[in-house]
Amino acid sequence: MTVKQLPLPELVAACAESGVSRVGLWREPVQAYGVEAAAGLVRDAGLTVTTLCRGGFLTAIDPAARAAALSDNRRAVEEAATLGTDTLVLVCGGLPAGSRDLHGARERIADALAELGPYAEDHGVRLAIEPLHPMYAADRCVVSTLAQALDLAERLPAHQVGVTVDTYHVWWDDQAPAQIARAGATGRIHAFQLADWTTPLPEGVLNGRGQLGDGAIDMREWLGHVDAAGYTGPIEVELFNDGLWARDGREVLAETAARFVTHVG
Amino acid sequence: MTVKQLPLPELVAACAESGVSRVGLWREPVQAYGVEAAAGLVRDAGLTVTTLCRGGFLTAIDPAARAAALSDNRRAVEEAATLGTDTLVLVCGGLPAGSRDLHGARERIADALAELGPYAEDHGVRLAIEPLHPMYAADRCVVSTLAQALDLAERLPAHQVGVTVDTYHVWWDDQAPAQIARAGATGRIHAFQLADWTTPLPEGVLNGRGQLGDGAIDMREWLGHVDAAGYTGPIEVELFNDGLWARDGREVLAETAARFVTHVG
Repeated sequence: MTVKQLPLPELVAACAESGVSRVGLWREPVQAYGVEAAAGLVRDAGLTVTTLCRGGFLTAIDPAARAAALSDNRRAVEEAATLGTDTLVLVCGGLPAGSRDLHGARERIADALAELGPYAEDHGVRLAIEPLHPMYAADRCVVSTLAQALDLAERLPAHQVGVTVDTYHVWWDDQAPAQIARAGATGRIHAFQLADWTTPLPEGVLNGRGQLGDGAIDMREWLGHVDAAGYTGPIEVELFNDGLWARDGREVLAETAARFVTHVG
Repeated sequence: MTVKQLPLPELVAACAESGVSRVGLWREPVQAYGVEAAAGLVRDAGLTVTTLCRGGFLTAIDPAARAAALSDNRRAVEEAATLGTDTLVLVCGGLPAGSRDLHGARERIADALAELGPYAEDHGVRLAIEPLHPMYAADRCVVSTLAQALDLAERLPAHQVGVTVDTYHVWWDDQAPAQIARAGATGRIHAFQLADWTTPLPEGVLNGRGQLGDGAIDMREWLGHVDAAGYTGPIEVELFNDGLWARDGREVLAETAARFVTHVG
């Protein structure tokens, strides 16, 4: 997503150029290219798929909408398996129109996970609940903290459901380090993502994630937390940023790799 | 602030028209009008001042900036006393330029409170730390939750330092109800403010607070939480909203009073 301006074949080539051997993919470009074809493209280039983003949106009350969401998530699990990644990131969904019931929405997510967890396991895939920053609680994700995400995940086995730790979403939370330790202790850190926090936030607050080093987040501090919790998996950089998307994708990828070395590596 | 388009004399008249007998004031218009004059204006109209907003911004590292902030907060305490309110709301400040140290910033706030708390007590004023929504953690307030605010407040006596509960800032937090109970148990709910959460958020995320009933927050639920915690003080409606500010202030005040009856009263 950091370089979504690059079509899949160019992304694969740019990764090779920049010495990037692992890549997180999003469903929309994969579906547009064809899931089998994308899997072959990536595999033939020697790239590993770290995670597939994203399933989720499991808060609907309407039965038809709920059934459609579950069906779409099963398809996402299948896509992840086809791509050869073991991790499907979940953005769990906001409040249904007119609802003010955060607790109820979180319980509907729990019910959905109870159905999807075993299905994911059957396909060799783990679900990774991503708590999103509280500014998205109404319209995008009612799971706002790692504590809430773990409360949901722990109702199911760790090889079915864990969490995604994304610095952009948790950096403000003084409870997050302890929750990372909690997640690590039960093997539930299924993904780790980096983005920096820059202000002012843009209208809609979606596409203003900062390039590593440009903002308020100490990347090494968070790397230290997941490290101490026993995490040895991939580290993804996921920047939704209109400014970066407007630039040449290969240049942005190379810059991001260099920033990673400076601020993380 | 909900009707900041109204100069103080018009605000006072509009309150009388709308049956509003208590008003929260902000420092800037009070200073512009003259603090003594404003106190007389409000008193002569039979209005009570609920709170003065705002002191705070206590995170500076630079000694001169820090001394200036402390001095300004002492002045804010004096203004509150002159206006006849016992409560000064604090917005504690963001990260200094270039800093990534949230913990250090919070400790500097604690140090400042240790100086300001006794000064406030001497003037019959209580400080009310307002946790701001985590989307303001970098540039406005490193105190993002009621738990963090209480951790700071509890270092000093309750009659010196407590917290402000504002629905806009805490509604997403499943720990907030328990923290409201914690605050109530030690007499530390010093202010209670309402605003609704509407999306999409505007650029800069400052002036998009929703009119009561327009958004995702169940006002009666939060009133129930502070009620159960023993809070019997005033309830303020504080809307930063470009749309409301562009309208006739008296009309907005009347509308807000009506919304209050529908969604809270």
